[in-house]
Amino acid sequence: MNSVYVGNITITIFGESHGEAIGAVIDGLPPGLKLDLDSINKEMDRRKPGSSKLTTMRRESDQVNIVSGLFEGYTTGAPLCGLIYTEDKKSKDYSELKVKMRPGHSDYPGNVHYRGFNDYRGGGHFSGRLTAPLVFAGAVAKEYLKQEGVVIGSHLKKIYNVEDKDFGSFGSEELIRLSEMSIPVIDPEVGAKIEAVILEAKHDEDSVGGEIECMALGVRVGIGSPLFNSLESRISSLMFSVPGVKGISFGKGFGFVDLKGSEANDPYYMAGEEVKVRSNNNGGIIGGISVGAPIVFKVAMKPTPSISKKQETINLETKTNTELEITGRHDPCIAIRGVPVVEAALAIALFDAYLEDKKWN
Amino acid sequence: MNSVYVGNITITIFGESHGEAIGAVIDGLPPGLKLDLDSINKEMDRRKPGSSKLTTMRRESDQVNIVSGLFEGYTTGAPLCGLIYTEDKKSKDYSELKVKMRPGHSDYPGNVHYRGFNDYRGGGHFSGRLTAPLVFAGAVAKEYLKQEGVVIGSHLKKIYNVEDKDFGSFGSEELIRLSEMSIPVIDPEVGAKIEAVILEAKHDEDSVGGEIECMALGVRVGIGSPLFNSLESRISSLMFSVPGVKGISFGKGFGFVDLKGSEANDPYYMAGEEVKVRSNNNGGIIGGISVGAPIVFKVAMKPTPSISKKQETINLETKTNTELEITGRHDPCIAIRGVPVVEAALAIALFDAYLEDKKWN
Amino acid sequence: MNSVYVGNITITIFGESHGEAIGAVIDGLPPGLKLDLDSINKEMDRRKPGSSKLTTMRRESDQVNIVSGLFEGYTTGAPLCGLIYTEDKKSKDYSELKVKMRPGHSDYPGNVHYRGFNDYRGGGHFSGRLTAPLVFAGAVAKEYLKQEGVVIGSHLKKIYNVEDKDFGSFGSEELIRLSEMSIPVIDPEVGAKIEAVILEAKHDEDSVGGEIECMALGVRVGIGSPLFNSLESRISSLMFSVPGVKGISFGKGFGFVDLKGSEANDPYYMAGEEVKVRSNNNGGIIGGISVGAPIVFKVAMKPTPSISKKQETINLETKTNTELEITGRHDPCIAIRGVPVVEAALAIALFDAYLEDKKWN
Amino acid sequence: MNSVYVGNITITIFGESHGEAIGAVIDGLPPGLKLDLDSINKEMDRRKPGSSKLTTMRRESDQVNIVSGLFEGYTTGAPLCGLIYTEDKKSKDYSELKVKMRPGHSDYPGNVHYRGFNDYRGGGHFSGRLTAPLVFAGAVAKEYLKQEGVVIGSHLKKIYNVEDKDFGSFGSEELIRLSEMSIPVIDPEVGAKIEAVILEAKHDEDSVGGEIECMALGVRVGIGSPLFNSLESRISSLMFSVPGVKGISFGKGFGFVDLKGSEANDPYYMAGEEVKVRSNNNGGIIGGISVGAPIVFKVAMKPTPSISKKQETINLETKTNTELEITGRHDPCIAIRGVPVVEAALAIALFDAYLEDKKWN
Repeated sequence: MNSVYVGNITITIFGESHGEAIGAVIDGLPPGLKLDLDSINKEMDRRKPGSSKLTTMRRESDQVNIVSGLFEGYTTGAPLCGLIYTEDKKSKDYSELKVKMRPGHSDYPGNVHYRGFNDYRGGGHFSGRLTAPLVFAGAVAKEYLKQEGVVIGSHLKKIYNVEDKDFGSFGSEELIRLSEMSIPVIDPEVGAKIEAVILEAKHDEDSVGGEIECMALGVRVGIGSPLFNSLESRISSLMFSVPGVKGISFGKGFGFVDLKGSEANDPYYMAGEEVKVRSNNNGGIIGGISVGAPIVFKVAMKPTPSISKKQETINLETKTNTELEITGRHDPCIAIRGVPVVEAALAIALFDAYLEDKKWN
Repeated sequence: MNSVYVGNITITIFGESHGEAIGAVIDGLPPGLKLDLDSINKEMDRRKPGSSKLTTMRRESDQVNIVSGLFEGYTTGAPLCGLIYTEDKKSKDYSELKVKMRPGHSDYPGNVHYRGFNDYRGGGHFSGRLTAPLVFAGAVAKEYLKQEGVVIGSHLKKIYNVEDKDFGSFGSEELIRLSEMSIPVIDPEVGAKIEAVILEAKHDEDSVGGEIECMALGVRVGIGSPLFNSLESRISSLMFSVPGVKGISFGKGFGFVDLKGSEANDPYYMAGEEVKVRSNNNGGIIGGISVGAPIVFKVAMKPTPSISKKQETINLETKTNTELEITGRHDPCIAIRGVPVVEAALAIALFDAYLEDKKWN
Repeated sequence: MNSVYVGNITITIFGESHGEAIGAVIDGLPPGLKLDLDSINKEMDRRKPGSSKLTTMRRESDQVNIVSGLFEGYTTGAPLCGLIYTEDKKSKDYSELKVKMRPGHSDYPGNVHYRGFNDYRGGGHFSGRLTAPLVFAGAVAKEYLKQEGVVIGSHLKKIYNVEDKDFGSFGSEELIRLSEMSIPVIDPEVGAKIEAVILEAKHDEDSVGGEIECMALGVRVGIGSPLFNSLESRISSLMFSVPGVKGISFGKGFGFVDLKGSEANDPYYMAGEEVKVRSNNNGGIIGGISVGAPIVFKVAMKPTPSISKKQETINLETKTNTELEITGRHDPCIAIRGVPVVEAALAIALFDAYLEDKKWN
Repeated sequence: MNSVYVGNITITIFGESHGEAIGAVIDGLPPGLKLDLDSINKEMDRRKPGSSKLTTMRRESDQVNIVSGLFEGYTTGAPLCGLIYTEDKKSKDYSELKVKMRPGHSDYPGNVHYRGFNDYRGGGHFSGRLTAPLVFAGAVAKEYLKQEGVVIGSHLKKIYNVEDKDFGSFGSEELIRLSEMSIPVIDPEVGAKIEAVILEAKHDEDSVGGEIECMALGVRVGIGSPLFNSLESRISSLMFSVPGVKGISFGKGFGFVDLKGSEANDPYYMAGEEVKVRSNNNGGIIGGISVGAPIVFKVAMKPTPSISKKQETINLETKTNTELEITGRHDPCIAIRGVPVVEAALAIALFDAYLEDKKWN
């Protein structure tokens, strides 16, 4: 149970940064789900590297090759396997990375965890590249959720010291529009500022962190569980599967600490036949279960640990202190490409919770 | 898979606030683990209600009655079942709560989730009372972790507008001392201020939120997994099982957003034969795996949703707007009693990850 | 994952032969399932000891005390916990059983498995008594299946050298009638013969094995899965959870070996609008999935390993050869009381598969 | 949870008979396991079609292409993905098979299960071809078991009316020798008779069933679990994942019915410091746990349902009765190629149980 998500669907993600292929197998998919390959590839494109000067220059088309589980455009109900072949394998010398542990990366704990047998090239199985199959799985989940009237979108709430506006009373169309922006922000003036901050970090051989705010509209009331499988448990568990995510906050999140109960509670009222909440401090989830309001949460992503600046570290072989300059092509801000990944993780969590709910029908 | 934690151990939590008994069954426990029942009861006492004017006046001794899996003081390896009988059942009229949905509570989403068949008395299966078996399970996990040299402790980082100091360079003894305080704080002046803030909220028929910071010392390097079972995934998933938790942040967490990579990365150095990190911004976890530094994270708990103040809500039966005044005995700040619960959740996550690691030996 | 069944429902069975209580917790039950406690107790009674001279004289009322998950007669959707308290605890000296390993029993492998920490009294967690909570879980599953039009029944196909007739074209009513017989057989002359054979074995301080044939009527086509979760995989896995079961055979089972494909295949034909099979050699399951015909299978149960006759064995403490005479109250033929247990195991497997199927609706 | 085995390792099998590729992903593999690719390919060769006139003429090299989880000859601990590309895709017209349901095949129940969206070409995901990735996973499991001193072997106990001798006191070398025979039998005269029987069936456009007996030597005492995860539960569950298996019998199995307890029990004795059993009626498993004796069981495989003889069936589209002659290349006796598949299923079960046991060290 390392790289397998086991729920009402099962997702197995495999591969290493420099392996022949990476991919995902999704089992438990309902048969008869029409897969819009264009939509799926659009999601892959949102995450793929090399698309702007804000992201790594490594070029991968990241097209998914579905080899099973799809027949005449529809899921069969049998496992869906999507393969992504590695194209841009710069053959380079990895002997330094084998012994010099990159700070902020999994190199050292990964080496110990895997008893020294890990494929260290480019981070191996820990590589951010493994989020490509996650986005694939999320894209399939989104196809299902679309049918259920659920729409997911996100924006860059904050990059370093540049902050975006709140979602406010965003609707589906506005959410969809965000997904078409390379720097998804609500305040039109913020995009350029973010770009400037990232390019400056890049120029300084450094990187910056970011906060992504994500929303799901149309999630009906009653989805989720109490206790171990609360909707927050499912979502957070998947979010922390994304390399670089270090915090999550639902609704007011840490802001709840500054509130009194009388301010924090979301009062109910009848809007015609429909139950609604006056505020949405709980981010659409109460007691682990969706309340019919938008699901809203924020995740914090740390600055890319791969920086070109000289860093202090150790040589694991010689057990001595040393220094490291990481060359190569890196994202100066992983939060940018993190947006579709975070959405994918959310889509998987919701898909799973929807399937579970059906068992009781 | 609602109220069952399935990992290398399986924990099933059952019961309702006003049922005859609540409890937990833990399966997969290593045989031969000596259970110190005093330590376990101490953990139960830390969580139990009625111990001070800061907590609810409901009185429960919350003693655990272990009916299986323990023989001559040692775990047998067969499932360990701990029962907690309900003592203080104030027989009262729940007809109002059946139809009036308490804001901020699971009443309404729970009703929909369970198709109207939920036991609504006192929140039923969603009740905070269900954290008692969680603490029991955590206490057993702590017994295991003790053998592995792991010590867990926490303090109230912030209650409403009162903030405590940081852990700094806390050691095991200081952590243990925290667990003996009814208001666990580092700064001795903060305790009284917290008390005042909570009592004021209580007096105002209101409640306040809080932030708990938790630390595990002695977790060895290499524990956890990449992707779906990252240590953060496991910990966060369990944290959001605790009613009222709305955010989690590992190490710098959301503070990472304000950092550059060169500041955020935790450089390695050799301390004799041992690999150490100069800083611990990552809260002891990198790439989903423990790095040998203290595990540190914060959780945000919302203000108790049960407040005596009049609140706007709906009558689910008549489908009309109405008002609600919640009478009864409530914690004005659930974060206080949340401390041992958060620790229990952490202990379970670490226990599970330790057992998983053993499979590869 | 020892004593927990993890599927679309989760069942945790706990307890030891001589513990304070044994029980089962079932999670994932659909809310709103009306539980007929009379039906459940009837199932418990079918399995309970002490009801005739053919079974052990140990007396247990084996009434289930449901402490959670049931509210006003309906399942709530939260975990259902049923406790069975131990009444007839003959306090006896177990020091001999601690060291002398009973042949055919789990004593020795259980001791090694549990590193010597197992509760050896009366077989501990391995005791046949643990089938009581299994029957309870099965009784709940039967309540669900009833709604779906599924009826389960069985007969003693063979006890030692006495063989019963086949099911032939049995219908629901005949199946139900079987469940009311203390020695369920189809051929009325066989019952007395079975009784004679068992009493003879008892008189000889010996025991006999038996073959149970079980049938489920009304299982609709399409339930199950290919590969790892084939209906046969699920059923067999649960059957071998029952102590003493050593073989299972679906439809023709081992008889298939003597057939040619042209004889073995079950031809389809249209009976009006309905698809039917001319024969049912496959026992209602093809490719791991129900075909709409009755599910039919046989299980072999070994003779009760507890016999009073003197047996050769070892003393595990002194590591020497020794002899053993097992005193006490034993079933001379566990297959008799195995009938409701086998049905319970089947009911759980079908219940699980039905719930899974719903996810795709 | 359809095509995923979830235990202490997770195995996902994907693909369809006529898809681009089929494969398996194994997660949870211990790092540092040296994979002998020759041994793995030898297992693949044992199963692969087209190797003799007794098996189907479809030709597939069935070489496994490992694309992840292997680095410098050793498992990394990350998921191991093995792909098998489809080579011999005879493009033929499947329109008949789309509507005419082959008796004895999953066509009809699979159609209903998958709501009509199944890939029906060549049986799709139900195809016997999917046992190739199972054999791959089993071959990896065997590499692990080899280190633990476990050797697995099997013979054709019975093909139609030709019966082989028993294992008797077989040792490791004799078991290994069996694995090198194309018709693995103990009695040298039986091989030719089996060949004759199969060729006769083939000539008659028919097929025959068979019984495979399988043995694992060197399994140490204490492996397995009581109840739901008994060693028999695990093994049987995996056996019934193999298309065509319809029965399993451990040790004496159905033969226990004819025995008395005094004959059935396997008495213990001390052989020096070692505990041994005088007989092995229980097939090496008592109480769900290995007893240190050889694991021995038999499985029944039905005759290949694909036969050329004319058969009665239905047209699912027109809902009318019709006839069917299956053309193409079929095994006249799937039990022949079933031998390495059954061994693979056993290897996986034992591997899983060994890993579980390690958690308690």
